[in-house]
Amino acid sequence: MSRAPCVRFGNAKRAADLKLYLEDPDNFETLSVVFNRSSRFGRLQGIKCAIAGKNLYIRFTCSTGDAMGMNMVSKGVQNVLDFLQTDFPDMDVIGISGNYCSDKKPAAVNWIEGRGKSVVCEATIKGDVVRKVLKTSVESLVELNMLKNLTGSAMAGALGGFNAHASNIVAAIYIATGQDPAQNVESSHCITMMEAINDGKDLHVSVTMPSIEVGTVGGGTQLASQSACLNLLGVKGASKETPGANSRMLAAIVASAVLAGELSLMSAIAAGQLVKSHMKYNRSTKDVSKASS
Amino acid sequence: MSRAPCVRFGNAKRAADLKLYLEDPDNFETLSVVFNRSSRFGRLQGIKCAIAGKNLYIRFTCSTGDAMGMNMVSKGVQNVLDFLQTDFPDMDVIGISGNYCSDKKPAAVNWIEGRGKSVVCEATIKGDVVRKVLKTSVESLVELNMLKNLTGSAMAGALGGFNAHASNIVAAIYIATGQDPAQNVESSHCITMMEAINDGKDLHVSVTMPSIEVGTVGGGTQLASQSACLNLLGVKGASKETPGANSRMLAAIVASAVLAGELSLMSAIAAGQLVKSHMKYNRSTKDVSKASS
Amino acid sequence: MSRAPCVRFGNAKRAADLKLYLEDPDNFETLSVVFNRSSRFGRLQGIKCAIAGKNLYIRFTCSTGDAMGMNMVSKGVQNVLDFLQTDFPDMDVIGISGNYCSDKKPAAVNWIEGRGKSVVCEATIKGDVVRKVLKTSVESLVELNMLKNLTGSAMAGALGGFNAHASNIVAAIYIATGQDPAQNVESSHCITMMEAINDGKDLHVSVTMPSIEVGTVGGGTQLASQSACLNLLGVKGASKETPGANSRMLAAIVASAVLAGELSLMSAIAAGQLVKSHMKYNRSTKDVSKASS
Amino acid sequence: MSRAPCVRFGNAKRAADLKLYLEDPDNFETLSVVFNRSSRFGRLQGIKCAIAGKNLYIRFTCSTGDAMGMNMVSKGVQNVLDFLQTDFPDMDVIGISGNYCSDKKPAAVNWIEGRGKSVVCEATIKGDVVRKVLKTSVESLVELNMLKNLTGSAMAGALGGFNAHASNIVAAIYIATGQDPAQNVESSHCITMMEAINDGKDLHVSVTMPSIEVGTVGGGTQLASQSACLNLLGVKGASKETPGANSRMLAAIVASAVLAGELSLMSAIAAGQLVKSHMKYNRSTKDVSKASS
Repeated sequence: MSRAPCVRFGNAKRAADLKLYLEDPDNFETLSVVFNRSSRFGRLQGIKCAIAGKNLYIRFTCSTGDAMGMNMVSKGVQNVLDFLQTDFPDMDVIGISGNYCSDKKPAAVNWIEGRGKSVVCEATIKGDVVRKVLKTSVESLVELNMLKNLTGSAMAGALGGFNAHASNIVAAIYIATGQDPAQNVESSHCITMMEAINDGKDLHVSVTMPSIEVGTVGGGTQLASQSACLNLLGVKGASKETPGANSRMLAAIVASAVLAGELSLMSAIAAGQLVKSHMKYNRSTKDVSKASS
Repeated sequence: MSRAPCVRFGNAKRAADLKLYLEDPDNFETLSVVFNRSSRFGRLQGIKCAIAGKNLYIRFTCSTGDAMGMNMVSKGVQNVLDFLQTDFPDMDVIGISGNYCSDKKPAAVNWIEGRGKSVVCEATIKGDVVRKVLKTSVESLVELNMLKNLTGSAMAGALGGFNAHASNIVAAIYIATGQDPAQNVESSHCITMMEAINDGKDLHVSVTMPSIEVGTVGGGTQLASQSACLNLLGVKGASKETPGANSRMLAAIVASAVLAGELSLMSAIAAGQLVKSHMKYNRSTKDVSKASS
Repeated sequence: MSRAPCVRFGNAKRAADLKLYLEDPDNFETLSVVFNRSSRFGRLQGIKCAIAGKNLYIRFTCSTGDAMGMNMVSKGVQNVLDFLQTDFPDMDVIGISGNYCSDKKPAAVNWIEGRGKSVVCEATIKGDVVRKVLKTSVESLVELNMLKNLTGSAMAGALGGFNAHASNIVAAIYIATGQDPAQNVESSHCITMMEAINDGKDLHVSVTMPSIEVGTVGGGTQLASQSACLNLLGVKGASKETPGANSRMLAAIVASAVLAGELSLMSAIAAGQLVKSHMKYNRSTKDVSKASS
Repeated sequence: MSRAPCVRFGNAKRAADLKLYLEDPDNFETLSVVFNRSSRFGRLQGIKCAIAGKNLYIRFTCSTGDAMGMNMVSKGVQNVLDFLQTDFPDMDVIGISGNYCSDKKPAAVNWIEGRGKSVVCEATIKGDVVRKVLKTSVESLVELNMLKNLTGSAMAGALGGFNAHASNIVAAIYIATGQDPAQNVESSHCITMMEAINDGKDLHVSVTMPSIEVGTVGGGTQLASQSACLNLLGVKGASKETPGANSRMLAAIVASAVLAGELSLMSAIAAGQLVKSHMKYNRSTKDVSKASS
């Protein structure tokens, strides 16, 4: 997880001084000790700086055990800022978050650097299954993926949006398992790839998602329904053997559900079924008085 | 609301032929009649094309009454595609959605062209209020906005993410009122501006949100709790006097809540209170067994 | 060609008033007369507004005959701003260029809306030629294009950069023909598509370039060498029969040269020849004392 | 300088294996030895990987002495790919450049990671000078910068284009000193900041340019005029004392010229002089027959 405060100096030279100090491997241990003081699980992993004139944006990344970890990282960052004030008394802390983090906004820094968990999920789908179950062909899916998810998104000026509907699945799981649904903005960054393999007979499909922000402790994970859902998935609470294992597994579950969702929607579109399916399963044409949501 | 199918021809010349046909004002009436056939409320508003070689992406936009309108526009698009097949028999429909729409993905086309409702919300905050209630100063807020929401987001390579946390508010309202929370990806596109006015004494704050996708009929708006929330806000169901008035009002409510959220968080950051507030109100330190969410 | 001044009002309401006025089709004729006053060739084509709070960005587009036309459009915009001051006396002109134009910067608005000339150029290359001349295969080129120009650029967070090296060709022609080489930033926006046709035997290749900014009169086109180059290409000066025909032809020449360049470099990469070719033709290993460039 | 080949495996698992191998600090020395073999100056600095399903994009960065270094880095990359083939025989090299480099395309990876030299240049301009020489005020410049270079570019969906006209200066110097003018696409990435200091009396201005790609040896630097220009600037050829010092100095010269250009144009716009200046100095109204360009 990452957090990036913005600090300002009297001139760019001083901002660069701090940048060099922070990026010097010799100082990393000291900074880690300071950062890690506030939490049992938060462990500083890296520091990446961006300068804009005399303003410095410092992106701290840390491991967070099984928590999503925004508060953990914010506290660690506050520790480091307090510590730096001694050696850099002319440092003016503009804000603990300077939007270079970048939380709940579509931003290239997350797409390039990752945030939360970075997951790749893949599957091979036999040509037979594509035809009989998905009612389309390997060739059609590969072509649709190239023209919709790659080219169409390129034409639309997409940022990390090279997929059909990752956001649907991410939003649903986030609500069900007590994640922060406002984070699906970047958590649903995804590139879906479909390639013909085995001489064109079978389909290789994958989703690559660099910034899935999830936790299995803290926040909404403690609510009754949400906790039950996590339990159902076998990832409730903190992993005792390997801290972080539960939240990593949850991220893998998110990605695999997205992969299934991509296969399903892409097949429906390739088969020309999208409109018909929406009409058939549309909530508004049903009696929803008993639906739980 | 918009939907953009992808169609393909044997060559770019033919794709350009269709583009010219679709963008010719003389054909708009005919296309409207065909498009509007499927719905009482969906009314074709515009057609914008993008070519990538021999592939054409056709972004249809239509008014949708008080519904969010994705299904409505999809059906209208299907009508037009069926109609075009007569005059363009060599047109190969690759998919009813070609990602140039662009639904549930961060994409410049929504930021530039808008999608759903485009709303600007503004307020003037007296300097007194900024000091006494928000515990900060006009000058600090203006500076923080410039360095965080504008410069920080620019450094992060943001797309439509020039705000502090619009997504938090959008996600919350969308869940509460039965909207599609997966659409908060682009619905939370927002640029927050803060400028000193009246000789620096007072604060002018605004949020500009070009793609708020909401409806007050259909979908999740019919669920019991969600329906109650819409009722509470006075925007439940279809407006009988002015179709679309309820959904437009809901979009305005979203934007004004975002404005309030921006003021609040920005003030907390400017006052250096962010970490402390999160610790104080953190759900995990409370007894949440009775919380409803 | 486009130019977008930034104007500011006391509140967003007033900025919206001007937006509605400018986008009202009934006012277009009046605005055109005012705009067109300053030039024989500049003809207002459209007005597109973007609001950010109480600030309005007004993107004027106009045809410019055979000139690239930046000065022409700037003068027309100045006319309109002067004219508007009467009805909108509270309008504060912040700058004649508000970066929503957008000139010499990579910006989605040019990729989505176009600037200068928008050109698609296509070719069918026989499989035989691909093998014998380009020393590669249709399949390899299609795959390389998908993985490099589409997927690789998507991973890199590209904006309008879905090509191999359009900028090389654009820069070279711009210098040779007296264009503004600083404009190759957006003039080289390009998506290159390669698709197998005729049952996979042949290659369909295209380049789509939405914002080629060129002119055949004015600026550097009058210099001796540059003028000679334009003459050689048959597009020197203003077309007498059809104003704009020469500059449109020059844009088509740029795109077709880019297509040739894409085919050449992509083939070299597919054949694994890139490094070897650069070593062989590298200027630094040759006697360049007599080279003219 | 950076170069990023694209390689493909049979599945994502294997692509991840190579990613882990390449990012393991224990392997860096071996890889460096292999990479550095081809050149006296090229020294591997870092490796950054991006996965898209079973395809891996490997961005190698290396120092290049006083050369711009594209060929140097390409050769080093080729060495590493040949070397890896032994341990990863199932690795399929799709292309030596996979567009994740990213050369001559606007791409977030350069804006976030840098390419070539990353430079910040700053200056303090006394209020007196702003008034008397630049004919405007500190307040106007600060405001114009906020509304044009930050907000206007944000509205336009800019990527690294938060400046007024960096590209003009970069293009001019690149042509004059024998650089590759096609690289001004990313070399002109720039964020211009203007802030009032000393209680609003004076102006602090800076330009931050993360990807200036220049060299003082090789390529066009050997041509007569270009070589003379480099000599004039005192940065001709390779620095004997400190390899790379000349090219770093040239990058600093580029940035400082951009800073001067920003000050000049921004002042002209703030003073409402842009159109008038262009009319006055327009080449087309002069006798240019003797102009050298």
